[in-house]
Amino acid sequence: MKKSKFILASKSPRRCELLKDMGVKFDIAVSDINENQVPKDLPPQLYVQELALLKGTSIGSGCGKGHYVIAADTVVVYNGEIIGKPVDDADARRMLKMLSGNTHQVYTGFSVTDTTDGKTASGYEVTEVHFRELDDGEIESYIASRAPFDKAGGYGIQGRAGLFVDGIDGDYFNVVGLPLCALNELMKKEFNISL
Amino acid sequence: MKKSKFILASKSPRRCELLKDMGVKFDIAVSDINENQVPKDLPPQLYVQELALLKGTSIGSGCGKGHYVIAADTVVVYNGEIIGKPVDDADARRMLKMLSGNTHQVYTGFSVTDTTDGKTASGYEVTEVHFRELDDGEIESYIASRAPFDKAGGYGIQGRAGLFVDGIDGDYFNVVGLPLCALNELMKKEFNISL
Repeated sequence: MKKSKFILASKSPRRCELLKDMGVKFDIAVSDINENQVPKDLPPQLYVQELALLKGTSIGSGCGKGHYVIAADTVVVYNGEIIGKPVDDADARRMLKMLSGNTHQVYTGFSVTDTTDGKTASGYEVTEVHFRELDDGEIESYIASRAPFDKAGGYGIQGRAGLFVDGIDGDYFNVVGLPLCALNELMKKEFNISL
Repeated sequence: MKKSKFILASKSPRRCELLKDMGVKFDIAVSDINENQVPKDLPPQLYVQELALLKGTSIGSGCGKGHYVIAADTVVVYNGEIIGKPVDDADARRMLKMLSGNTHQVYTGFSVTDTTDGKTASGYEVTEVHFRELDDGEIESYIASRAPFDKAGGYGIQGRAGLFVDGIDGDYFNVVGLPLCALNELMKKEFNISL
């Protein structure tokens, strides 16, 4: 099978949508790394880059030559602590109450691997996100929609939780899961290609 | 025909998509006002609210009771001047070169009209948008895609031009054309309803 120039090492439907919206053609390959091998007490900008590098290089080695593998990892950080995906309703409730009325950070690490020579480069982007005050009714209704459960920090800005966010400072697409502008700049600088 | 609770007074596919993504049910009714009746030398926050009010009330009067009409108008402002939609390739080129490497503002005015008693309220949101430096090749390729031609300022952040934007300060959805959070807050405060 002839593969596209770009291979996205992610099964996130949100990252796929972003690239599609940009008119980028790509294939998808999902890595099977153990995320626990990266210590959660690393500074967030290193943690997300490490994971992006692990995902990208684990895919890159099996793709054949002539491709660029794009990988990414996104976390929510509140008060200096990495917030993962909620494990149950109570966990989602705790996260949303914590973020309500406050500012948090979203970090996405990204990596690009040239499968011809194995050259790999990485970067990260951080965006400040401010939630207005949420009331219990909207938190419960959002949890009941099951939307929090595959998402870092328990929310997805591109869906119903867009109503929770009254402002951001930085790259919006970074919050969705892939900082397109920074990724494209890295590609131009390090690989002389662009999305 | 039974109409939805909400009526969107806009034919913008981007505003429709935003409301759909939020899970809001609505019908569409497009107003036929003459936009030139609002002077372009008004301050942008008044200009966009005036247009939103005109669009909303012109629709509201023909809808029958029991609905809320949502209307909006979005402009791009650079150096204090309102930038409209490009009229031809040269105009789009001029706009994109002007925005390249600089910060501009996106203003969206919005209005809500209760068709039962005619009560109307309006508000606006402003977001700062920063473009990285664009090169001539990407400007020409973006113009060739025809994407600039139905959009204020000659670009749409949710498409390929997402790659032009390295950061925003404020509400992303406002840049797309409808500031969901501010709109929802206005609905709660003035009409005791929400999206």
